[in-house]
Amino acid sequence: MHIGMIGLGKMGLNLALNLKDHGHSVIGYSRTRKTVEKAISQGIEGTDSLEQLVGMLGPRKVLWLMVPAGNPVDETIDKLVPLLQKRDIIIDGGNSNYKDSITRYHQLKQQAIDFVDVGTSGGMEGARNGACAMIGAEKEVFQYLEPLFKDICVENGYLHTGANGTGHFVKMIHNGIEYGMMQAIGEGFEILEKSRFNFNLRDVARVWNNGSVIRSWLIELTEIAFASDPQLDDIRGVMRSSGEGLWTVQEALELKAPIPIISHSLFIRFRSEQVDTFSGKVVAALRNQFGGHAIEKA
Amino acid sequence: MHIGMIGLGKMGLNLALNLKDHGHSVIGYSRTRKTVEKAISQGIEGTDSLEQLVGMLGPRKVLWLMVPAGNPVDETIDKLVPLLQKRDIIIDGGNSNYKDSITRYHQLKQQAIDFVDVGTSGGMEGARNGACAMIGAEKEVFQYLEPLFKDICVENGYLHTGANGTGHFVKMIHNGIEYGMMQAIGEGFEILEKSRFNFNLRDVARVWNNGSVIRSWLIELTEIAFASDPQLDDIRGVMRSSGEGLWTVQEALELKAPIPIISHSLFIRFRSEQVDTFSGKVVAALRNQFGGHAIEKA
Amino acid sequence: MHIGMIGLGKMGLNLALNLKDHGHSVIGYSRTRKTVEKAISQGIEGTDSLEQLVGMLGPRKVLWLMVPAGNPVDETIDKLVPLLQKRDIIIDGGNSNYKDSITRYHQLKQQAIDFVDVGTSGGMEGARNGACAMIGAEKEVFQYLEPLFKDICVENGYLHTGANGTGHFVKMIHNGIEYGMMQAIGEGFEILEKSRFNFNLRDVARVWNNGSVIRSWLIELTEIAFASDPQLDDIRGVMRSSGEGLWTVQEALELKAPIPIISHSLFIRFRSEQVDTFSGKVVAALRNQFGGHAIEKA
Amino acid sequence: MHIGMIGLGKMGLNLALNLKDHGHSVIGYSRTRKTVEKAISQGIEGTDSLEQLVGMLGPRKVLWLMVPAGNPVDETIDKLVPLLQKRDIIIDGGNSNYKDSITRYHQLKQQAIDFVDVGTSGGMEGARNGACAMIGAEKEVFQYLEPLFKDICVENGYLHTGANGTGHFVKMIHNGIEYGMMQAIGEGFEILEKSRFNFNLRDVARVWNNGSVIRSWLIELTEIAFASDPQLDDIRGVMRSSGEGLWTVQEALELKAPIPIISHSLFIRFRSEQVDTFSGKVVAALRNQFGGHAIEKA
Repeated sequence: MHIGMIGLGKMGLNLALNLKDHGHSVIGYSRTRKTVEKAISQGIEGTDSLEQLVGMLGPRKVLWLMVPAGNPVDETIDKLVPLLQKRDIIIDGGNSNYKDSITRYHQLKQQAIDFVDVGTSGGMEGARNGACAMIGAEKEVFQYLEPLFKDICVENGYLHTGANGTGHFVKMIHNGIEYGMMQAIGEGFEILEKSRFNFNLRDVARVWNNGSVIRSWLIELTEIAFASDPQLDDIRGVMRSSGEGLWTVQEALELKAPIPIISHSLFIRFRSEQVDTFSGKVVAALRNQFGGHAIEKA
Repeated sequence: MHIGMIGLGKMGLNLALNLKDHGHSVIGYSRTRKTVEKAISQGIEGTDSLEQLVGMLGPRKVLWLMVPAGNPVDETIDKLVPLLQKRDIIIDGGNSNYKDSITRYHQLKQQAIDFVDVGTSGGMEGARNGACAMIGAEKEVFQYLEPLFKDICVENGYLHTGANGTGHFVKMIHNGIEYGMMQAIGEGFEILEKSRFNFNLRDVARVWNNGSVIRSWLIELTEIAFASDPQLDDIRGVMRSSGEGLWTVQEALELKAPIPIISHSLFIRFRSEQVDTFSGKVVAALRNQFGGHAIEKA
Repeated sequence: MHIGMIGLGKMGLNLALNLKDHGHSVIGYSRTRKTVEKAISQGIEGTDSLEQLVGMLGPRKVLWLMVPAGNPVDETIDKLVPLLQKRDIIIDGGNSNYKDSITRYHQLKQQAIDFVDVGTSGGMEGARNGACAMIGAEKEVFQYLEPLFKDICVENGYLHTGANGTGHFVKMIHNGIEYGMMQAIGEGFEILEKSRFNFNLRDVARVWNNGSVIRSWLIELTEIAFASDPQLDDIRGVMRSSGEGLWTVQEALELKAPIPIISHSLFIRFRSEQVDTFSGKVVAALRNQFGGHAIEKA
Repeated sequence: MHIGMIGLGKMGLNLALNLKDHGHSVIGYSRTRKTVEKAISQGIEGTDSLEQLVGMLGPRKVLWLMVPAGNPVDETIDKLVPLLQKRDIIIDGGNSNYKDSITRYHQLKQQAIDFVDVGTSGGMEGARNGACAMIGAEKEVFQYLEPLFKDICVENGYLHTGANGTGHFVKMIHNGIEYGMMQAIGEGFEILEKSRFNFNLRDVARVWNNGSVIRSWLIELTEIAFASDPQLDDIRGVMRSSGEGLWTVQEALELKAPIPIISHSLFIRFRSEQVDTFSGKVVAALRNQFGGHAIEKA
């Protein structure tokens, strides 16, 4: 298949290489010439012109977007539409909000352009060597693309989740679960680290990865992290977030689904980005007011 | 009534002055001569000798402890016991663990010394002008002391909560609720402070204190705090804790009572005493591992 | 002042009576004739015709809406606008989302009609005898209405919180705090109730209301609740919610403000409306899978 | 090696079979004749007499306890001690509290009997085919037993975690993390299940197991669970807990480690065992008091 990969960042380039390994003809695109050249140096044909990109693709063109969620997706689609023909396919493989994906599907439908939302998991390594793809698409479009997903995903690693929007919906929930799992792992190691026993944290992660109930890729990555920095001394515990966790909580609010663990894991991330909290200041002031408890000066 | 007030810190001295205002004969004790002198300068008779203190009291001596929870209580009791006689009364008015109070009750019972556990609330102001007392005691002992509690508490502000231990139990729960209420208030103001509207936080606290559903002494104190420091710029949000919140959570664990709000308010306090979290480091390391997300160097 | 009170439910009727007590000329409106008649029987002039209502008011008409948030507010405004003149005033005293209030303000501005958003607290009793009002309005409009708020609120019980929208914003946060405070109180009493001590919960609430740190209107109401049902045997613990708590969490998500206590208090309410949880089913199934732990059949 | 397996429940029997597969001579013991017979029917030599069991073992006897935590462990040890000789080894492979294990170690030390605490993970399947073992022991004792652990664990699936007590400590933390991971997974599926999209939950679990960031044994088990009951209709969401999660929270309280996710996951389990909550009754009563919100009758 001929694929135009738009966005050649960490994920886009790895997916392009993965596609190429499986015999697909990939042309990479980035606005930035330097990024294009980096891709070319790794064997991916590339251009910094969308017109040129589209021109190089065969009939029923497949444009795969790996650009940041939000405006960049809309801007790219707006530029692509005049260049495309009926039944050409735009895939959004980034972390877009599923509601945006549903809107984009309907908008493109009016132009007779097919849209597919793909939640992509597995990190950079997965993108390169075998990803996990959650695919929201019309059945015919999914079937047309299926060989492609079969090639770049691990075995059983792709799923037609349903109508448009569901790919990004399932990826959103995946990330919500990920937030909670990671926070649980972090808390466990925080206790180990604070305990009077002088645990080798890497060893603990390793043994847990072999036969335990909590064995998982995340614990494998924990083991790797401790291998290079045994007490994580070089790292600050600042946990940023890119949207999916927040959207998961927003979705739960709409559905009245009680999800304290996931929501909490998100709030802990917000907290980690703050040096201090205003709520803490209020409580400290109150303790001082009623009990005379000493205040620490800012 | 003749009362020996042992411990002349913020709470002890105010209670002594409160008792004196109501015509009781109070003798203050502190190990520290300087503290005794400060009490004397405020009109409280005082000594730094327990023997002298006990000698100055009339029959059925009442010794009221306002010393830090834990060892100081036991050490004081150990020193007092040889000086006391049958049916003398030791009141522990501090924030002791109710289980310790039950143990002390039984130990003193063997010496025929009466023990009373009093949870005291209302802060320094309450101690001075009208406290709230939760009293665990045998019925006869409570009745003997009742006039005293009637004098120093606000109207309806004392309760015989039941057998020994229950005074400190009810105070423990009171403080657990206090943790949760304070954190809720803090969070509300954190949103107000972060919002794009330029709220006058003192005014907001004031209007809430007049007729709203959440009117409360804690919101009154919030108003006072904002009056002197409108954005709490001078205060760090470090929230220490002295035990009752933690004991509340421990009690809930034993009773299998789901109390996520109180327990979380406690964990937020622990978090506020840390500059960074190890759990955060783990999560940040994981995000870097799978997604290449940048790490902030420590 | 002449006021048209639109909506004569629990809050609207009490506010109307309160206004009348203070010498204002109030005309009540409800779509439902029966509701109008009930108001009339309590001395409030009334009508089920908006046209008639507007016709009965003097110049610079004041229309006070106490109708459910959402569509009912928009529908009422849509019907009123053709009947009103420049500088007439619509007050929304209900629990509307502050974003809607900002939108309505701008829409009405185009018709030269003034809009005021009033967060009203204090419950039914406050509405009747002295409310708490958080008022988002243009300065001139606020000043025009100020005598009215002075009359129906407790002393210092009203505040011009700022531009339009801020009245409902501050009320939203008030309710978020209320959720947290109530849940903290509930958890405290849950431990008391589960403990082996046979506490008289009403007595505990009463003593806490007199001099303690957590004295508050909510604990006063707790005392009253236990007075009529000592163990709350007749009540199911189903906690519904009408929107402000949810909006508070949504606002915090937008502001990246960590508010785990308020958000969790909301999720606990959602949980209370479910008989069982799907998350619980998943966990129970997992425990069965790996450990052979018995499953309870649905 | 000759091993006496004491306790032939789900875990004990599977471990015995696993040991036997690897050429060890295992004699099983249960108080219950029927349980012994079941083991014998599966090829494990067995007895319901501890004396007989001990008599059948060779020098430096190894007694492996797989009995419920708490009293059963102490009772079994008490019965064993008179039958053992210096340097015989008692392994506690159950889910004991690590503090108890430290105590038992010291008590047995006085009898010159070696004690080893082994946290065993991997569920029944792991016990049968390859477990994960966290081992607290003196170095010499660990080394003596190491061939045994090598045989019954998966590759790299055992770890000498340190001094006595650390095996059960690390297992405790493992289970704490497990609670959090499971709850996060449950919440994610709760949203999927509540959403308007008609997801095939088994398919979602399957795709996540192949290449995604959250791939893990727990998600594999989720897939299996959905395979046999697609909507878990037959299961109630009651989540019992056997101690390790609770101990993890208690440990965190002692260490002042903020672990809201794990503690919360525990409280959610407590909640799931209750039909209703007292805290909910209090909140419902309060909402009725101030707002007239309808109460649902019990």
